[in-house]
Amino acid sequence: MSDVALTENEQSEHAYEIDAALVEAVLHSVKTADRDHLVELLEPFHAADIADLFEQINVKERRAFIALWGKGFDGEVLAEIDEGLLEGVFEELSDEVVSEAIKDLDTDDVVDLIEDLEEPQQERILDALDMSDRVAVEQALLYPEDSAGRLMQRELVMAPTHWNVGQTIDYLRKEGDLPDQFYDVVMVDPRLTPVGKVPLFSLLSSPRKTMMTDIMDEEFRTIPVLQSQEDVAYAFNQYNMISAPVVDADNRLVGVITMDDAMEVLDDNAEEDIKRLAGVGDESLIDSILSTTGRRFPWLAVNLVTSILASVVIAQFATTIEAIVALAVLMPIVASMGGNGGTQTLTVIVRAMATKDLTRANAIRIIRREFFVGLFNGIIFALIIGLVGYYWYGSPMLGVVLGVAMVGNMVVAGLAGVLIPMGLDKVGIDPALASGAFVTTVTDIVGFFAFLGFAAMLLL
Amino acid sequence: MSDVALTENEQSEHAYEIDAALVEAVLHSVKTADRDHLVELLEPFHAADIADLFEQINVKERRAFIALWGKGFDGEVLAEIDEGLLEGVFEELSDEVVSEAIKDLDTDDVVDLIEDLEEPQQERILDALDMSDRVAVEQALLYPEDSAGRLMQRELVMAPTHWNVGQTIDYLRKEGDLPDQFYDVVMVDPRLTPVGKVPLFSLLSSPRKTMMTDIMDEEFRTIPVLQSQEDVAYAFNQYNMISAPVVDADNRLVGVITMDDAMEVLDDNAEEDIKRLAGVGDESLIDSILSTTGRRFPWLAVNLVTSILASVVIAQFATTIEAIVALAVLMPIVASMGGNGGTQTLTVIVRAMATKDLTRANAIRIIRREFFVGLFNGIIFALIIGLVGYYWYGSPMLGVVLGVAMVGNMVVAGLAGVLIPMGLDKVGIDPALASGAFVTTVTDIVGFFAFLGFAAMLLL
Repeated sequence: MSDVALTENEQSEHAYEIDAALVEAVLHSVKTADRDHLVELLEPFHAADIADLFEQINVKERRAFIALWGKGFDGEVLAEIDEGLLEGVFEELSDEVVSEAIKDLDTDDVVDLIEDLEEPQQERILDALDMSDRVAVEQALLYPEDSAGRLMQRELVMAPTHWNVGQTIDYLRKEGDLPDQFYDVVMVDPRLTPVGKVPLFSLLSSPRKTMMTDIMDEEFRTIPVLQSQEDVAYAFNQYNMISAPVVDADNRLVGVITMDDAMEVLDDNAEEDIKRLAGVGDESLIDSILSTTGRRFPWLAVNLVTSILASVVIAQFATTIEAIVALAVLMPIVASMGGNGGTQTLTVIVRAMATKDLTRANAIRIIRREFFVGLFNGIIFALIIGLVGYYWYGSPMLGVVLGVAMVGNMVVAGLAGVLIPMGLDKVGIDPALASGAFVTTVTDIVGFFAFLGFAAMLLL
Repeated sequence: MSDVALTENEQSEHAYEIDAALVEAVLHSVKTADRDHLVELLEPFHAADIADLFEQINVKERRAFIALWGKGFDGEVLAEIDEGLLEGVFEELSDEVVSEAIKDLDTDDVVDLIEDLEEPQQERILDALDMSDRVAVEQALLYPEDSAGRLMQRELVMAPTHWNVGQTIDYLRKEGDLPDQFYDVVMVDPRLTPVGKVPLFSLLSSPRKTMMTDIMDEEFRTIPVLQSQEDVAYAFNQYNMISAPVVDADNRLVGVITMDDAMEVLDDNAEEDIKRLAGVGDESLIDSILSTTGRRFPWLAVNLVTSILASVVIAQFATTIEAIVALAVLMPIVASMGGNGGTQTLTVIVRAMATKDLTRANAIRIIRREFFVGLFNGIIFALIIGLVGYYWYGSPMLGVVLGVAMVGNMVVAGLAGVLIPMGLDKVGIDPALASGAFVTTVTDIVGFFAFLGFAAMLLL
């Protein structure tokens, strides 16, 4: 039985991985233009896995693959393809394939596709929709990017408050045009304002005569249509929600967001934070060499300016270094420890902001904590590095200079790591994106200045 | 109406934030021992928000809060409390409160609680359970940590394949002991092997006489009970699953995992990667100053060794630096650019591994890409920094040395950023945890060595 085979496959070490053997087999059938074999190879795989396969092969192979597979494309595969590849895929597809594929999708998936495409491809998709879907999609596109309005689907199930369980079930059995998936019936008043939610499991476990209002969950949350997707994802995660009604400014029901959409946003946001902290923007593995070079350039350029600033600081102490060359040998240690300490603090703070754990209520306590953590680790490492410096160059005073500079820079690193992201957040700049450069600038400059400055005072 | 108020509140800028005013009001009622006011303050908040409140206050305040709120604790709040705080909370709670609170929870939540506690508190919870729940929890604890077995709940709804829709609904209406929430009916054969899944929305929209097997989804995935939670979360995210049956080695149904549990794992994993890359382990804002100092120490210690190694390299060129002090001024630039370039590559690679985008099928292509990205950015920055060095010190040869060292270090950085995590992964070490130190060691040493070495050859 195929279910058993699937289970065994899942138990293997690389459970859900498109493996090298499959990629090779697929490429072979593409090269030999053996469409039947290609279809057979891909048949057992989920749309999301097939979409991942596109990231494993290069541009030329992709083009040949698309041409051969042709009608194999359905809406689900298109919905799963990485946004960076989508434009290229659509350019290769015939109108016929596009319009067939689009028909399967709920409006939220169509919106998601269209968002990532250029004008001409957008038109092709809109043309493939029937009139009511087209209106729905075009309306969704009127909402700002990254708003709940773009994330929601308009297909939903609602019921008036005077219905009972039996009426609702009869309606569901008769109604032909239900959403592909749904988990709640939204209860609305005559103005279409949601007043409660009946989860399907409550509906199913209640007698037909039960009034819907008796089993409805009134503690439900509605999502304002203009709310940011980030806040939507936070709410789904925080409150373990499976689906939530979306309302307009008049508090009228306009759509529904389900957990799979929220999960994607949540996942994307964490991913974004990781990459922004390292200065690699929205890069992915499928980007070409040139575009990757371009994406990484800005951060490196910022870092170049930063490190030149640090060099300017060092240059002020050229005569000190000339007199005591040991300073040149040891100075990177102080700067590097500060940079690492600052990055540690920064990372914790940026994530705490993203998960709303850091608020005005505990900010002072956290700043105080980072000061003391910097101080304590600074003292420990000052002792170690002081002894190292002393033994290495036989100068106790050099050890003292190293130690004092270390404590100072670690404290500054801790404070910079918390104050800089807080400050950036306050003026509306994403702290994940910009904090790193500022923090290491501070720790480099303070590190070199403190070490060389103390040395000039105490050792010359 | 309270729903409207909620919606307006959500539309405010800090939609779901526990704000400073609330924290202050709560602390005031704790200080004045005004239990009624405390209960009233917390009443409108979700369990997850109340649990977050615990992270906003200090140890002493927390203790007083717990003593006052007492019976206010229900299972949901306990289930949401940060694992680092849980032990302390349980120590303050009376047996009576614990046993009342535990009764509300599904077994998976109880397992989740027990995992984070020490022996004596675990016993208290087990003692509070009735016999069948206790057996279920103890059995779950026999599964390895981080396995699907620990994540699943045993409460589920299954049906034999010969039932029709009407029989299933009648069963659901009669059965008193249903799970708190469920989204599918799992169809099983007489050996309890899952053969399909009927989503509740299909059940509800089909006539009573329809056979369950006619509307059952056969393309469902089962989760082996020993599968890692990381793979479970990946599958839920990749395949947009809402719930999935869990099976034992004999392919028999033993439980169910729902998307909220998977979402939590996914979220935790991304969080872990971010923090590990910065060397801050599983730190959170609630950790004390001393424990934070301790958690950050190892990474800083590694970095100290690394930077001393780099200093040893510099020390080899002490006489060169004595002769040309400009080298001491400029050398941190080359090392720092390499470190940043390496970290960029590393971050992309570590995330691509976590999301299973980097496989053996595309590894060679990615290594090649990183080589060229390093080369191209290296060339651009070599030109810039070469000119800077030339103008600053009036020596064209110094510019050449800077430029050549820059290209070399950027290429090495790109290769180290991809090869080191791949190598660590191969020998079974988490690349997020350990790669950073290795990569910056390489770029520091290569950076200083290349720059000072070329300088010694070409400038003296």
